[in-house]
Amino acid sequence: MPALPPGYSIRRLEAKDYEGVVETLKVLTVVGDVTKSQFEELVKYWNDTTLHIGVHSLPVYNPHVVVDETGRVVATGTVFIERKIIRGCGLVGHVEDIAVAEDQQGTQLGLLLIQHLTKLAHDRGCYKVILDCDQKNVGFYEKCGYRRCGVEMDHRL
Amino acid sequence: MPALPPGYSIRRLEAKDYEGVVETLKVLTVVGDVTKSQFEELVKYWNDTTLHIGVHSLPVYNPHVVVDETGRVVATGTVFIERKIIRGCGLVGHVEDIAVAEDQQGTQLGLLLIQHLTKLAHDRGCYKVILDCDQKNVGFYEKCGYRRCGVEMDHRL
Ligand SMILES: CC(=O)N[C@@H]1[C@@H](O)[C@H](O)[C@@H](COP(=O)(O)O)O[C@@H]1O
Ligand SMILES: CC(=O)N[C@@H]1[C@@H](O)[C@H](O)[C@@H](COP(=O)(O)O)O[C@@H]1O
Repeated sequence: MPALPPGYSIRRLEAKDYEGVVETLKVLTVVGDVTKSQFEELVKYWNDTTLHIGVHSLPVYNPHVVVDETGRVVATGTVFIERKIIRGCGLVGHVEDIAVAEDQQGTQLGLLLIQHLTKLAHDRGCYKVILDCDQKNVGFYEKCGYRRCGVEMDHRL
Repeated sequence: MPALPPGYSIRRLEAKDYEGVVETLKVLTVVGDVTKSQFEELVKYWNDTTLHIGVHSLPVYNPHVVVDETGRVVATGTVFIERKIIRGCGLVGHVEDIAVAEDQQGTQLGLLLIQHLTKLAHDRGCYKVILDCDQKNVGFYEKCGYRRCGVEMDHRL
């Protein structure tokens, strides 16, 4: 069972992580213009969005960061929870926007982050956790306990 | 440009659609035990969940039904909207739980429903709309204007 390097930790993303998260996400895709105040508003939306199952209240969005011993953001990713009719009004976890800083790749950070998000979603009652990835990352996600189950398709204007 | 058969219509799913929606979804997967009151509570959750972008308020969940001239549910599907950091705090539409009643397959209902949900998501500002499907349905979604873009992976306990 791999563990985080000494001094590293995984925690929920906070508004103060603005620069680190924006920088880290550039490894994954186009981040574009995101101001500090837009970021703060988004983090507030994520924090305020909850769902209620019986007496339980769960956060819908669960954005996380891995920080190193200096507090620098070295990885980020999220899982959000969808409420469906199928599977007895089942919950599904969607893992999204996984990025590991370039100088930390090949370490186990990505794996540990995925395991953390996957466990969080199952602990909250998700019958499955899904993600979409490039063909070239299939091997990595298999190491994280995922298996191929379908084709992702997109529609862009 | 195909059109719905005379008397058919597409509208937002309502609590009264309980039996029709549960029956229709059985074509897609295991629906399991879903009582009328669970369904009503879920529909209320979907209706109450909105997101605010500036002064605009948008529903996050957009479950729809196609009904025939007698009011019977003949197809159902949804698109929900995720708020991201990437792509300038972009929105993504997730098309989910598309099902067409067995006796209506081969008609254009599925295509019309997908086009409706896809347009709704783009009109609300989504930079892309995505869905996951079985390999055997890729051709159908290509006809709807989607293209393959990745691999869906899942994790189940
Ligand atoms: C597991 C994982 O992290 N998958 C990501 C997805 O979450 C992200 O939103 C997308 C961005 O691509 P885009 O900028 O082209 O939408 O890339 C990958 O599919
Ligand atoms: C475009 C579309 O409708 N895709 C559906 C997905 O939305 C649904 O949730 C899943 C159910 O499968 P499951 O019961 O094995 O989770 O099947 C398909 O992937």
